[in-house]
Amino acid sequence: VSPLNEEEVRHRLQAFPNWTLSAGAIRREFSFPSFIEAFGWMSSVALVAQAMDHHPDWTNVFNRVSVSLSTHDALGLTAKDFTLAAQMDRLFAK
Amino acid sequence: VSPLNEEEVRHRLQAFPNWTLSAGAIRREFSFPSFIEAFGWMSSVALVAQAMDHHPDWTNVFNRVSVSLSTHDALGLTAKDFTLAAQMDRLFAK
Repeated sequence: VSPLNEEEVRHRLQAFPNWTLSAGAIRREFSFPSFIEAFGWMSSVALVAQAMDHHPDWTNVFNRVSVSLSTHDALGLTAKDFTLAAQMDRLFAK
Repeated sequence: VSPLNEEEVRHRLQAFPNWTLSAGAIRREFSFPSFIEAFGWMSSVALVAQAMDHHPDWTNVFNRVSVSLSTHDALGLTAKDFTLAAQMDRLFAK
């Protein structure tokens, strides 16, 4: 897998206004009404991630989940990161 | 809720050889054969945590979960942290 170049990353990122690029990863913090909703969302995402064989780096503190996506194998960002980000946004919007 | 004092914390910690005390929290890293097992364990812990109304700070990267426990309301460590740590160890040992 080869990583996207910087221009490709910036272009794709325009479709993800809630995500920021930092240290070679795209990041977003998700907030929920409670731990129940936060972990419920994580469970949904876990199923998607496992099906994609592409897993997030994420931290949960009570009702918040901080996500960092990159492709370790490619040492950078790939299309998979943006696909997973889109799925996370979609599941969050529900 | 009042926090445990330093002596109480050190005494309790003796029963938790896999946990370390750092910056007012007790910490352990759990490693699993795969993401499936890691997230399965997190799901089990989430049910326990919600029942206790006491939630971990935790980070998952693929097959690893780094846990930090403290009691935010008490600005320190309480008996609840050690109860949750014991449950995490118990569910991990299965």
